[in-house]
Amino acid sequence: MKIVTFSHYKDVDEKEIKDSVAIVIDLLRATSVIIWAISNGAEKIIPVESIEEAKLFKSVEDAFLIGGERGGLKIEGFDLDNSPFSYKKEIVLGRTIVMTTTNGTRALKRAAMAKRIFLGSFINAQKTAEYILKEASKNDIQKITIVCAGTEEKFTLEDILCAGYFVDMFKNGLGVVEIDDLSLASFELYKKFENDLHKILKYSYHYNRLKQLGFEKDLEFCLRKDFVDCICEYKNLVVEKVLVDV
Amino acid sequence: MKIVTFSHYKDVDEKEIKDSVAIVIDLLRATSVIIWAISNGAEKIIPVESIEEAKLFKSVEDAFLIGGERGGLKIEGFDLDNSPFSYKKEIVLGRTIVMTTTNGTRALKRAAMAKRIFLGSFINAQKTAEYILKEASKNDIQKITIVCAGTEEKFTLEDILCAGYFVDMFKNGLGVVEIDDLSLASFELYKKFENDLHKILKYSYHYNRLKQLGFEKDLEFCLRKDFVDCICEYKNLVVEKVLVDV
Repeated sequence: MKIVTFSHYKDVDEKEIKDSVAIVIDLLRATSVIIWAISNGAEKIIPVESIEEAKLFKSVEDAFLIGGERGGLKIEGFDLDNSPFSYKKEIVLGRTIVMTTTNGTRALKRAAMAKRIFLGSFINAQKTAEYILKEASKNDIQKITIVCAGTEEKFTLEDILCAGYFVDMFKNGLGVVEIDDLSLASFELYKKFENDLHKILKYSYHYNRLKQLGFEKDLEFCLRKDFVDCICEYKNLVVEKVLVDV
Repeated sequence: MKIVTFSHYKDVDEKEIKDSVAIVIDLLRATSVIIWAISNGAEKIIPVESIEEAKLFKSVEDAFLIGGERGGLKIEGFDLDNSPFSYKKEIVLGRTIVMTTTNGTRALKRAAMAKRIFLGSFINAQKTAEYILKEASKNDIQKITIVCAGTEEKFTLEDILCAGYFVDMFKNGLGVVEIDDLSLASFELYKKFENDLHKILKYSYHYNRLKQLGFEKDLEFCLRKDFVDCICEYKNLVVEKVLVDV
């Protein structure tokens, strides 16, 4: 098994990704929020790139909720912002939510050539990694790609740390594994800070921006590990919960 | 002062680099070899992209030496390969050498918009960092960019570790410093392995390739720190020694 990590969506090599199972990570906050919404009973999430596209969906089907952010903040006229605390069960249960975030949506679209595409976050990483290992083995898939969304088309530390957590679990779950340099670097960084991710992230760009905007609780939320069981898959432009046989 | 790191030459943002002093790192082996050649008395190095270009220079001036590699190995008809051990004083003293290496040359050209461009390697990092800090302060330059050449347009661990060493020295040499996420990650990785870089690099791609080709001594050489005093600058398409006032 081979593991390849990309530090931002623009770096994704379509030749490299096409035989793989992909994990897309936009930790702060798109993939964390989508996973949390699905976990709270949202039926599906439709990620779109533009505000106009989200509003178009709403004009066609008024029952849809529209959510997302620009510059970290709620978009005018939208039902929901990009904070996990806005996606409570009583609001999202049974609903379809159209979400627009910049990096997360683009990363999902760039990963579209992969065999299957899962959403990754610390909040459900373990269950997702276990499922991917089982499915890869069942379907004889020899490559896992980790697509970090990045911020403003740049290397973003929180996504890389989460990638490192996945690499850690894959190394433990597999016998021999071939990892590329960025997977190796992510793994080593994650292991250095696994017991206190805030210790390094407090010097990083995007984490600080959200902190300045008052989203400290969101940071705590998105960095807590494995309190969510559900696995989320992006398929035919829509994110839905994977139904797992127990 | 701000420090920005790029993981491979294709990622370089020209807007970001243009006000900066840049350090270009292609640790294994282009920048290490060029620095060593200059240190052994080579008059200048002309980095070129293609084999044809190198041969053209040789046809124009027979006294030029031509060196470089493809796939890590010597090019047919060339005087020198890409191993530092080939660039001995008795061979290079007073000579102009035309060198073709893929990633290193491209990285230097991508950095061409910077105010000044220096070559970086572990072998002369400290002197180079000290000189850059002095010059930046003298000329009121507020940004240092570190351009890792990368391998096959990908993140390459040995370049990142060397970038981390530079970040470490800049953090020590400056009071307040703003560093981007990749500079931060490079610094933390470097600090984790600063006493034994081979410990992590033995799992990395390019290091292993060179090892398999029989270049173990070159790896040792390029990872030894600060036994070279000279500082090398790329200017008007040519690399020369910086004459430093003592």
